[in-house]
Amino acid sequence: MHVLKYLSAGVAMTLFSAQLLAAQTPITNSQKQTANQLIETALDSDLGYDIVESLTTEIGPRLGGSEAEKRARDWGVELGKELGFDKVSIEEFTMPFWDRGQLHISLTSPYQQDLYGSALGGSAPSKKGINADVVYFRDIHALAEVKAGALKGKIAFVDGDAMVKSQTGAGYSQANMRRRVGWQHAERGEASALVVRSVGSDSHRFPHTGMMSKNEDKWAKIPVIAISNPDADHLRRLHNLDKPLSISLHSESKWKSDVSSGNVILDLVGSEKPEEIVLIGGHLDSWDLGTGAVDDGAGVAITTAAAALIAKLPKRPKRTIRVVMFGAEEVGLLGAFAYAKQHEANLKNHVVATESDFGAQTIWQLVSNVNPEATVLMDEIAKILSPLGIVRGGSDVPGGGPDIIPMARMGVPTIRLNQNGRDYFDLHHTPDDTLDKIDPDELAQNIAAYAATIYLIADSDVKLK
Amino acid sequence: MHVLKYLSAGVAMTLFSAQLLAAQTPITNSQKQTANQLIETALDSDLGYDIVESLTTEIGPRLGGSEAEKRARDWGVELGKELGFDKVSIEEFTMPFWDRGQLHISLTSPYQQDLYGSALGGSAPSKKGINADVVYFRDIHALAEVKAGALKGKIAFVDGDAMVKSQTGAGYSQANMRRRVGWQHAERGEASALVVRSVGSDSHRFPHTGMMSKNEDKWAKIPVIAISNPDADHLRRLHNLDKPLSISLHSESKWKSDVSSGNVILDLVGSEKPEEIVLIGGHLDSWDLGTGAVDDGAGVAITTAAAALIAKLPKRPKRTIRVVMFGAEEVGLLGAFAYAKQHEANLKNHVVATESDFGAQTIWQLVSNVNPEATVLMDEIAKILSPLGIVRGGSDVPGGGPDIIPMARMGVPTIRLNQNGRDYFDLHHTPDDTLDKIDPDELAQNIAAYAATIYLIADSDVKLK
Repeated sequence: MHVLKYLSAGVAMTLFSAQLLAAQTPITNSQKQTANQLIETALDSDLGYDIVESLTTEIGPRLGGSEAEKRARDWGVELGKELGFDKVSIEEFTMPFWDRGQLHISLTSPYQQDLYGSALGGSAPSKKGINADVVYFRDIHALAEVKAGALKGKIAFVDGDAMVKSQTGAGYSQANMRRRVGWQHAERGEASALVVRSVGSDSHRFPHTGMMSKNEDKWAKIPVIAISNPDADHLRRLHNLDKPLSISLHSESKWKSDVSSGNVILDLVGSEKPEEIVLIGGHLDSWDLGTGAVDDGAGVAITTAAAALIAKLPKRPKRTIRVVMFGAEEVGLLGAFAYAKQHEANLKNHVVATESDFGAQTIWQLVSNVNPEATVLMDEIAKILSPLGIVRGGSDVPGGGPDIIPMARMGVPTIRLNQNGRDYFDLHHTPDDTLDKIDPDELAQNIAAYAATIYLIADSDVKLK
Repeated sequence: MHVLKYLSAGVAMTLFSAQLLAAQTPITNSQKQTANQLIETALDSDLGYDIVESLTTEIGPRLGGSEAEKRARDWGVELGKELGFDKVSIEEFTMPFWDRGQLHISLTSPYQQDLYGSALGGSAPSKKGINADVVYFRDIHALAEVKAGALKGKIAFVDGDAMVKSQTGAGYSQANMRRRVGWQHAERGEASALVVRSVGSDSHRFPHTGMMSKNEDKWAKIPVIAISNPDADHLRRLHNLDKPLSISLHSESKWKSDVSSGNVILDLVGSEKPEEIVLIGGHLDSWDLGTGAVDDGAGVAITTAAAALIAKLPKRPKRTIRVVMFGAEEVGLLGAFAYAKQHEANLKNHVVATESDFGAQTIWQLVSNVNPEATVLMDEIAKILSPLGIVRGGSDVPGGGPDIIPMARMGVPTIRLNQNGRDYFDLHHTPDDTLDKIDPDELAQNIAAYAATIYLIADSDVKLK
């Protein structure tokens, strides 16, 4: 009706506008209606919370390569069938297994006090236990300057600072240097062990575990232990009082023989272009200290629930929607590399890929790394997500999520629904990552955003590459 | 000058008013001015924070009867001398010593998962370790109904709920029943061990330790372990799914031979009535899991700093101000009972007693349990405290603080400067009770209130009994 009104202004003008309109709105009214319906349904649904509750309660912690992670895969398969996915499978791969074992760590001078620590992933065992004087380093830069052999018979402690809380998680990579490569400097100094301030933004007595980086295929030969922020504060205060510090520690962690892990694949087969794949997912494994609720039970729940809501629509979207529950992410993106390798020949048919792996707080931004025509599509999707409090961001998409990195490097376009990460590094890799930290309403907002976004991309003809 | 102005209105009337005024304002202008000056100085001072930083850093955790608690007494003596107290002494007493030792506790069915627990004070050792099926009790009332012998070979788990956060700490006594007497019901049932939901208002993976109650001089013969609220939630969810639960635990905690503890006494000797004592204090010992910052390094710091500020005045107040750093509070008010016994003959000269032992958040209320004339004095003091955000409360003074209970029972009048306890039971008796949890400004507000209040009582002639 409105169009008729403008016809009098000249046919050429009207045709031009209509073309412009078509280019600007690559989403049909019917698709828009469906997306809005998905949002409404998601916001009213407990499905996502039920999934993460089930995973954390019935499976518990699930370290990459463990028996628990295998139970989680079986759980994922059963869940996929229950929720009406068309194809459900496990793709196994082999991986080296790092076992945490027991740890005791305490201050022994100037007095006896337990420290709250955890071995970092890849840490070596202490064998008989170590009791040694501590050499204090204010930060990783100070440790990086240590001379060869200068730490012989000592335990190095690398301090630093608690991470500043931020929406985007800025500061993680920088803080993470002490966790990732601190051991290489400590070993050059011939230290008996390295103790590091945890990489986290909280002030609770929880260590933050996490994987170290290899040095040209070599893992640390010394124990490397992260201690909580309050414990690190304590050591710093004692150091500043010129108190001589010594620490006793015994860690059993070590590498064991290779084990199986795997990715769980749940497909909603596309109705028109089944070979084109819109890939979403989270990682199924978790660190062993908590129950992996926020990292990344939430991501598994968000993406599985979003696809399950789409599965309830009268008709499958044109393209295939694939949920991947990646295995062994925490211990080195092993599932991600296995997926990229296994599907290498078919990655050209992966329309887009994205992962939810930044907690369970609300999504605030949609970013994309796609071609100009697809950018218009993403702009339109962002408008539909706007009532959820989501704004459109630029092309700042670091790989679409950790498990997407390998396939992004191989050319798969990525988008990301950025979550508010303000509290994420309070919990990240700690014993405190448990179900009670998830707000069901915030989780539902995530599912609403994923359901609408993924549906609209999967039902579109727009190429994203 | 002002009085002269009113003389014309009639001598009788003026005299009556003056009398009324004297009854209503038992505080002189000069005293009021001094109190205000103390408040101002306290709010600008770091002394309290420096004291609690020193105690938690240089001494660390200090379990009642431990070598660390002895170091804390020496620290207290040194501090008292430095701060200009007139008399500084230690009053020793003998006490039984409970040693925590190591604990391992994990879920073993339906799968392996570490639980975050701590032995409760008075808990018995497990000897060789226990691995047993769990019998779930929704709360202490359900456990209280258990029949004799009904738990043979089992581990009882008594659930309950996280404490509701409140300004006053309401709900602690009720929640604490499972910690205090749960073991008696479990032993009647012949359980191998008792696991209890921690008594705390947080949702962090920290157990809350604390002392159990004796049963007619008998301590528990079984291990009794508190687990964190998130762990208890986890067990409840598994129980609600009808999963069979079993737990493995090994605890080394046990009673050892008697040891020495002591109270540290710091006196500012009164200038006119040195025999009359205004007693304030906190407890020097702490639980061993944290560093006892909030419980009760804060109380020691608040009361010591308040008295130290009064010590800087040009003249000592009329009455003696005594700071007591009580020993072995956590393990049964042992220092408090020792003090009351040792000073029994002189308690009649204790004008008033009060303790700071409810954390480090701001004071919001002044309550008192004193005679009517002294009530007027307290009303006037409350007016002076009003700019600090403190209101006057009634006579709801449960003993003036834990360590005041024994002497209050023996007739010593009490007051209390009630702190906001909203977050207190998040940290209470956990590993997370560390210095970073104290806000220096809130601590300074406490010191301001104590300094003004204690000065005004000590410089008064009003009897409080």
